[in-house]
Parts: sequence; structure tokens; C-alpha cells
Amino acid sequence: MFREAIERMAPYTPGEQPRPGQRLIKLNTNENPYPPSPAVRRAISAAATAAALRLYPPPRADPFVAAAARLYGLPASHILAGNGSDELLSMIFRAALGPGDRVAYALPTYSLYDTLAAIQEARVAAVPLEPGFAQPLDALARERAHLTVVCSPNSPCGTLAAADDLDGLARRLGPRPLVIDEAYVDFASGNALGLVRRHRNVIVLRTLSKSFSLAGMRLGLLFAQPSIIESLLKVKDSYNLNRVAIAAGAAALDDAPWMRRNVAKVQRTREAACTRLRKMGFEVPPSSSNFVLARLAGRDMAPVTAALRRRGILVRHFPASVFRDAIRISIGTPAEMTALYKALEPLIKSVVAGRAGGRAQK
Amino acid sequence: MFREAIERMAPYTPGEQPRPGQRLIKLNTNENPYPPSPAVRRAISAAATAAALRLYPPPRADPFVAAAARLYGLPASHILAGNGSDELLSMIFRAALGPGDRVAYALPTYSLYDTLAAIQEARVAAVPLEPGFAQPLDALARERAHLTVVCSPNSPCGTLAAADDLDGLARRLGPRPLVIDEAYVDFASGNALGLVRRHRNVIVLRTLSKSFSLAGMRLGLLFAQPSIIESLLKVKDSYNLNRVAIAAGAAALDDAPWMRRNVAKVQRTREAACTRLRKMGFEVPPSSSNFVLARLAGRDMAPVTAALRRRGILVRHFPASVFRDAIRISIGTPAEMTALYKALEPLIKSVVAGRAGGRAQK
Repeated sequence: MFREAIERMAPYTPGEQPRPGQRLIKLNTNENPYPPSPAVRRAISAAATAAALRLYPPPRADPFVAAAARLYGLPASHILAGNGSDELLSMIFRAALGPGDRVAYALPTYSLYDTLAAIQEARVAAVPLEPGFAQPLDALARERAHLTVVCSPNSPCGTLAAADDLDGLARRLGPRPLVIDEAYVDFASGNALGLVRRHRNVIVLRTLSKSFSLAGMRLGLLFAQPSIIESLLKVKDSYNLNRVAIAAGAAALDDAPWMRRNVAKVQRTREAACTRLRKMGFEVPPSSSNFVLARLAGRDMAPVTAALRRRGILVRHFPASVFRDAIRISIGTPAEMTALYKALEPLIKSVVAGRAGGRAQK
Repeated sequence: MFREAIERMAPYTPGEQPRPGQRLIKLNTNENPYPPSPAVRRAISAAATAAALRLYPPPRADPFVAAAARLYGLPASHILAGNGSDELLSMIFRAALGPGDRVAYALPTYSLYDTLAAIQEARVAAVPLEPGFAQPLDALARERAHLTVVCSPNSPCGTLAAADDLDGLARRLGPRPLVIDEAYVDFASGNALGLVRRHRNVIVLRTLSKSFSLAGMRLGLLFAQPSIIESLLKVKDSYNLNRVAIAAGAAALDDAPWMRRNVAKVQRTREAACTRLRKMGFEVPPSSSNFVLARLAGRDMAPVTAALRRRGILVRHFPASVFRDAIRISIGTPAEMTALYKALEPLIKSVVAGRAGGRAQK
């Protein structure tokens, strides 16, 4: 019925989303534990007038893009709005890759890249992370792929690539496009947005799902030079953001101090989490994001994940990855993290003692 | 930088969307002149709680799909929600067509199909409409393309293909997929949704942009058997509808009587418009949609469109189509239509008298 590549491929599996009314501590999909700015809700109500809803939205989401231009100091011609940064990634893969073309990225990383490559029937040049979870930028440069993607901070390990190193990578790859997926960068100590002005081949992605607490509104931003934006507009759905999302996005960006206060809280909880989890015996790479990777080398963490699930706590486990001996924990409120430690500590003692945690109960 | 096919292709051009504050009579993009159900606004405000917005939406837009299942009498397994039916069309083209594959449809039709085909590097088997603006279903069957699309009612001429004839086409094409794009079908006297139960290769598309007055919310629905839905889920963005859109869509579908009252008003105005425009000398095919095509054979309507624009009235002209001697007029309120007739009548007298309307003033 459809292309063979589609019939054959496995779908991307998002993390579990609880059903309405389910009471779970949700530390599995990197949502922000704190609410978005109250200005967002006001903007949504104001945008939802009957007169406005019957009319198509502005195709380029102008008010949202204008707010991004103010906040990030780049002209609107350098900015493209997406229905989440997932849609922007999909647009980039569609524009850049035909069957047999090569896309390079480090593994493990955001597994959506694999799905998008499979849809395009592109070949993946997968480069393993370096020791210490660092991005293998030198190896990525040598691949000289049609498209290169660096997730920074990277998921699921939380490590940041230095802007200077990404600058060098962009230079070596030019004119081939380099995507820097900065979904988590507001939780880091630096970012690579400045490279957009210096390089004609750099695309920086941001999302409002994490730091701005708006995963439910699907808002992403892409920064690049106008020639790239013009090409991507050709594969963009005409009206990809609805009127309410556009208003919500503009209001959120206009209240960046609210976001920064939430980020500071998450960062404090994250540092406490690293300390606590290391005390339990986990290897925890320093995180520049709103999650931490907690690893017990060589121990499959599927039973621990399942045991936590039975106790009402969701964390993320990647059974097909080299990190199947780890769990990725989104940073919640201090109270949620305390509940996690309480549930996790006895489980880990069992694992370390060789009684394999929840495995027997499965 | 990107694929050559992308760099070479022309973008899809949506109709003009006025800037905020611009006072225009907008009869160019087939929006509904009446507002959506008041239940939509209430649902949007209720969905926009701070607690909800920070969490990802349900990936398959469950409440919206459940409302569609109730209204249309099909199980949820047969329904896929889209960020507008444009996104659903994009998903179908991506799943069905690789480079060199063939997609068949009548011309003229919704010009987005050309854009989506170009992105996939597919070849278009374009079949001209039959005399009387009828869909050339027999010729489409003979093409036996990888994908066939029938827009019914068709844009820009408003003509409906009979469900029985589409049933025959589906049988002849099987197992190749047949898309029936019913964006405008609520304004018609029949529809082809029932074919979804009878044919494993039929995909029916609907949108809430027209009859439900929600162009601003980007809500589309796809109906097909579960094997098709499962394949399309692989190319769908994980979270393609935001929480507010999902709530708005469910509320709109649950108040279908409101939609039907608006549709009845538009139908009455449409019939009056056909009569009035024919009196002016236009050829106007019977319309099953919320717009009419008004044609003056052999006369380029670009100057008339421009002259109307100067008088604050937007209609749609397709300069590259065989219908460049026509304008497509979305049905507005009776008052908006009266303003249109008042502006249009003297322009047409000039054209018919050979003074070529606004051409000299351009």
C-alpha cells in the first residue's frame, strides 16, 4: 500500500503519557515540573475569540517570531516557527535527505533522528560517543555527511558540546548543513546560537517544551540564515501553528524572567540529584539539561524501571541502547525527587547485592 | 545545501491573510463567515490550565478522536487527527511516494498536491477535468498510479463526485490507495465516508477549517482502515496536536448542530450568489462547497481581482491555471456578498465592453 521503507520501519516510541486521572510521578519525558508564565494563559484566552478562530493564522506565526527576534536578538528573517521542534527536525530531514543520502550523528542521542532518517530512506552514519559521554565532533566532521546533527545538551546523557568546538565543526562541514539541537540548552551554562550569524550552514533548534514549561502547546524555533529559512518554507505546512499556539508562544518568550526562575530551581534540584544518585552507587555524568542519566555499568535497568512504575514513578529506560544499564530521570520538584530516592534506594541495594531488583517480581 | 529538488521547486502560495487591523472583506480562502460554537472558546479556556500546558499532549489526540468516533460512527482505530488536513495530506504523500513514483489527480484542483508531489520528487499524472467540471474518474482509474487523490467537492470549481462513482474507482484502483479529500463536503448533499468500511485502500479527509469555522485552530481528520492508520502513525510527528487544539476540536464536533446551522446559511447565500453572478454574465458551475467559481471564458481576471483588492475585497485568482479567466469567491455573509456585487458589477461591464476592467489603472 505504502512505500516499502515505511511498511518495514518501526515507529518512534514516545515516553508514556498518563491517562487523565492517573496519579503518577512523571519523570520520564523531561517536562518542566513548574507551570508556565501566567501570561500564557491570559494570551490563550485573548486569542480564542470567535472572530479570530474562524480565520487562518499568519503562515509564518509573525507575533511568535517577533517575540523570538526581541528575546534572541536576531532578525525575523533568521527565524522559523514550528509545531514543536520535532516538526522543524522533520522539515530539515525532508529538505536535506533523499534515498541513500547520509546523515551523521552521535549515538546514543534523541532517537527521533533514526525515525526521520528511515522515513527519508537515508543512511545513518552513527558515531559512538567519546569516553566521558562527550560528542565525537572530530569523527562527525570526518563523515562529511549530507546532514550532521548534534544534540547539545545531548539526550540521554545531558552533556554539552562547547560552542567553540561546534564553531570548528561548522567550518569543517561547510557548506553541508549542521543542525545543533538545543532543546535543553536553557539548563546549560552556554549555547551556540551565535554561530548562526557566523555560518551559512548552521541551524540552531530550540523548543518551549522544556525550559518554558509548554510541552502541551507544541512550540519550536529554528534559527538560521535567510537562505536556509527560504528553503525550509517550501516543505513547511502552510499554516503549521494555530492562532492560540502563536499567542501562547509570544507571551511565554515575553516573560523570559519567569522561565529563568524555573530553570534556576531545576538546576538546584539537579545538582542535589547528582550527589544523591552517586551516593547510591550510580555513575552520573555532569548534566547541562533538565534530566540526569543514572548508570550502573553492566546492570540491565529494565526491572528497576518496571519496579518504579509499579510504585507510581515513571522514569525513562532505553532497552535497545548501550545505556540499557541506565535510567534517565527528568528533574521534578524536590518532593517528587524525594519520593523517587525513597523508592529507588532499596531497589538499587537489591541490584547491587545481586538479587536483581524487581526482576523476580516481573 | 539541501536536495536539488527542494532548491528548484516553487513554494505553495497560500491566499492573502490580512495583517491585524486591516479592514478587508475576505472572500479568498474559504473561511466560514460565521463564528464557531461558543463551546469551543469555553473548552480552550478550560484546557489552558497551567498544570496541563506543561505536559505533553496525548500523541493520538484521544478526546478529539473520541468525539469524531461519536459523530461519524466509526471506531477510533479508523481515525487519525491532524494539525489541519494539510498535515494529513503531507503524511500520506510522504508514506506513499518515493522519487519517481506516480501520483494521479485531476487539474485544476487544490494546488498543494503539486507542492507535496514535488517534495517527494514524485511524477504527477495530471488528468484534465471533464466538460462540466466533472472529475475524470475513469481516466484516473486507468492511470493506476501509486497514489490517487480526488478532491470532492473539488476546488476551485465546487463540483462533487458521486459516492457510487468513487466506490467504483476505489474498486478499480485496489490495492493502490485512493484519497478522497472532503474538506468542503459538509456543504454538499452527500459524502463518501461510508467507503472507508468497504475498501481497504480508501482514505477520507475532513477538516474543521470550513464548516466548523475553525481555520485558526488547524484541525483535520483522516478516516481509513486500521492498517493504513498504523502505517501513517510512523510518519506522524509524535505530538502533532497541542492540548488546546485537541480540546477545541472535541468541543466543535460535539456541537455539530451549530455547524449545520451555519452551513445552511452559507448554502442559501451560495445559491443566491450563483443566480446573481450568472445574471452578470459569469459561467458559474453548480457548487457543493462554500465558494463559487465565476468565469468569463477567455478573459484574464487578474485585473478584476486587483481592482476588487483596491476596493478592499479579496477574492482568489489562479493566474497559472486554465481558470485564469475565473475568480473563486468564498461565500461570505449576505452583507459582504452585497458589497462584492456592488464592486464587481461595474468592473464586469467594463470587461465585457472591452475596456478590460482595472487593467488600465494597474
